[in-house]
Amino acid sequence: MKKKVLVVLAGCGVRDGSEIQESVVTLLALDRAGVEAVCAAPNITSSQCVDHFRGTVTQESRNVLTESARIARGEIVPLGQIKPAEIDAVVLPGGLGVATNLSNFHTAKEEATVEPTLKNLLLTVQAAGKPLGFLCLAPVIAAILFGAQGLRYTIGDDEELAAKLARYGAQHVNCAPTDAVTDAKLKIVTTPAFMLAERLSELETGVDKLVSELLKLA
Amino acid sequence: MKKKVLVVLAGCGVRDGSEIQESVVTLLALDRAGVEAVCAAPNITSSQCVDHFRGTVTQESRNVLTESARIARGEIVPLGQIKPAEIDAVVLPGGLGVATNLSNFHTAKEEATVEPTLKNLLLTVQAAGKPLGFLCLAPVIAAILFGAQGLRYTIGDDEELAAKLARYGAQHVNCAPTDAVTDAKLKIVTTPAFMLAERLSELETGVDKLVSELLKLA
Repeated sequence: MKKKVLVVLAGCGVRDGSEIQESVVTLLALDRAGVEAVCAAPNITSSQCVDHFRGTVTQESRNVLTESARIARGEIVPLGQIKPAEIDAVVLPGGLGVATNLSNFHTAKEEATVEPTLKNLLLTVQAAGKPLGFLCLAPVIAAILFGAQGLRYTIGDDEELAAKLARYGAQHVNCAPTDAVTDAKLKIVTTPAFMLAERLSELETGVDKLVSELLKLA
Repeated sequence: MKKKVLVVLAGCGVRDGSEIQESVVTLLALDRAGVEAVCAAPNITSSQCVDHFRGTVTQESRNVLTESARIARGEIVPLGQIKPAEIDAVVLPGGLGVATNLSNFHTAKEEATVEPTLKNLLLTVQAAGKPLGFLCLAPVIAAILFGAQGLRYTIGDDEELAAKLARYGAQHVNCAPTDAVTDAKLKIVTTPAFMLAERLSELETGVDKLVSELLKLA
């Protein structure tokens, strides 16, 4: 039977949701690897809506699940309906939505928290010995949840962000966009993606690496 | 100097804009081929907004350029600002937006018309001997504009759609999703994409083929 990998989305767009190109390249890499990708997103209101042409915040109210469905061509499941026992691994693409919808990292003054349904799912899946993958900005969620266990991860070469995540105990490693960092003990793989990638083909190489590492651990 | 290929978007989502996965796989194929992709979209109100989770039309008003900017990570130009002389080829991904925003094919009772800025651009580029590529449903635009010149194209194996497009003079050819149809005389390449593709990796093969054919003609 095909392995099943959950892809958790945070909306549709780099500035208020999931980074679209990272999400699609992840789905492509999973398909090429012969595994089944299942998209899911929490059924919550997006914390903001950004005009991606002008870069300004608008007053629109959008739903994270509904917008994520655009990336998934309608083939998406509310995150709360996902049964951890039925999936073999989880991947989170980047995009600011990981810090505004899937966690409150973007605005938290003190310790940030992860959206409860996602937190519960990731802790359960990881405790069951299944691997997790995080692209671009998504490793902030890994750092919040697994930093205390000494997580070794990458957020590209962003020293400022790495310093902020050190409070959770997470150990940052510089990494090229065409490579990935694997914490074999925690079974967590991270790649810089558009934190550093300047071309889609560079992103593709890094994501292929992450997927390959992830499936070795699954 | 790198060749410059224009990718025209119609919004962000298969049911009311550009098909996201087709758009990203096109950008990826162009990058791998070593050409520069320039994204553009008309600055017009989307003719409808569809909830992609439920499949229902909503009452929201969205702008085609603003939503397309999500796919392009903000790197997008209003279509009216594109100078035909500065580009070497044009590609249109599919998605229902090609029939609702870039043309009125979806609702037209009589002959459909193409959005004027796009029509003018495509006619000018093609008359200058530069190639055009159309994925999935986007060949309806090619059929409307170039059918009278006897365009040979594919819309997968959709006989009903092919019959509707025959009124413009366009000649449909069945084609596998992993292949593309080239009209060498008109320099127009078409591929079925998600009209037939069942997997992202299948889509990728067809789009790679289209891009390769397109660049041979550029």
